Amino acid sequence: MERSGAAAIIIGNEVLTAKVQDQNGPHLIKRLREVGIPLRSVETILDDVDAIVDAMSRARQKARYVFTSGGIGPTHDDVTVRAVALALGKPVVRLPEMVSLIEARAPGGKVTAEGMRLADAPEGAVLLPQAGTWFPVLTVGDIFLLPGVPQLFRMQLETVLARLSGTPVVLHNLFLGLGESEIAAVLDAVALSMPHVAIGSYPEFDPTKDYRVKITIECADRGPVEEAVARIVGGLPEGAVLRRE
Amino acid sequence: MERSGAAAIIIGNEVLTAKVQDQNGPHLIKRLREVGIPLRSVETILDDVDAIVDAMSRARQKARYVFTSGGIGPTHDDVTVRAVALALGKPVVRLPEMVSLIEARAPGGKVTAEGMRLADAPEGAVLLPQAGTWFPVLTVGDIFLLPGVPQLFRMQLETVLARLSGTPVVLHNLFLGLGESEIAAVLDAVALSMPHVAIGSYPEFDPTKDYRVKITIECADRGPVEEAVARIVGGLPEGAVLRRE
Repeated sequence: MERSGAAAIIIGNEVLTAKVQDQNGPHLIKRLREVGIPLRSVETILDDVDAIVDAMSRARQKARYVFTSGGIGPTHDDVTVRAVALALGKPVVRLPEMVSLIEARAPGGKVTAEGMRLADAPEGAVLLPQAGTWFPVLTVGDIFLLPGVPQLFRMQLETVLARLSGTPVVLHNLFLGLGESEIAAVLDAVALSMPHVAIGSYPEFDPTKDYRVKITIECADRGPVEEAVARIVGGLPEGAVLRRE
Repeated sequence: MERSGAAAIIIGNEVLTAKVQDQNGPHLIKRLREVGIPLRSVETILDDVDAIVDAMSRARQKARYVFTSGGIGPTHDDVTVRAVALALGKPVVRLPEMVSLIEARAPGGKVTAEGMRLADAPEGAVLLPQAGTWFPVLTVGDIFLLPGVPQLFRMQLETVLARLSGTPVVLHNLFLGLGESEIAAVLDAVALSMPHVAIGSYPEFDPTKDYRVKITIECADRGPVEEAVARIVGGLPEGAVLRRE
């Protein structure tokens, strides 16, 4: 399988135990969509080295870019650096550049042994400087190790996205007055013959809404989207399409 | 590895492309926590048979219960039933009980070929009847195939949870006035010697908050939680703990 797009790994005991609701996954999804980098998966896992190694290996098999959230502080539950190094088959090394940054910021240059863990990284890691903060983004290859704290995650994500390029998607929505069972045959036919166009069908069961199914048609190019829309609309009974967006 | 707890698979092109923000994952996380069933992972993946088969195989290796969200309607993008059958090495069969339910509800008993797809299930599937709706919950083994539509997901989840039993967790929170680097050595020592107690450390960078780190200490039993709390508090400098919850 060709590696393309991005995958995300949310390292979060606190998320899976309902102590906090994850904000980083939804934010990453939204921003990647805006810049046009397709997202293959978001895995939310425990703060566990084996679980991270597994998820990272899977993510790297399918995606070009991998974003992690969480587990990069100085405490015992911060195991992301070690796990990513293991997944890459690289040792953990101490980055001299990061040691200097940490020492420069500490009162009197004194840092605890645990505080200095922030300078540890998989061998080959690169630090991306950020405007407005002393703390850089930790990257290795096309893996970006972002912090779990939402305001820091967002800031670091923008630093990363400024360096990547995507292809925004062309999306067309159809809102229908028919149920899914009545339109499935038409969608089947178009989806089968146009596999490069992503067609989604989402039923709406809220009786206060003015439609019964929303159809999404999308592709990186406008032409195929317009063709698929025309074929779907042409295949449906007259009046089935209530509106378009 | 022993299979325990639950795993969730959110089948959601619409989630990964930012068309909707997933509500089912967070709701499932919250409800499983409340009933005391530990959650191992939540994977959000594309509406893709191979991706679902892979995720299902992984989930079943680690978890006793697997919940899926989405992909169980009658359209071309509803591939969950087929994928779960593949993951289990079972054929897809048509459930006579579901055929009867669908026919009984259709005007004049007439159902499209696509509408009847709702009666397809992995061999060995069992339908759980629900109060207040004709539509049952589709299960096979300890896999629960829930719909992606949030109000239906929530209703079906309650039908399932009424049949499962869990062990609610004892949780103690400490709010500290010190940073993570200063407390890491104490946490390390306690976490290492009490591996059955889950200890989390969450820094707070919002200057309007009255603490710098929140420590979570949890376990199914009260005794180990109290012991870990006492050891952490005893190892920290006087006045480090601002409050407890």
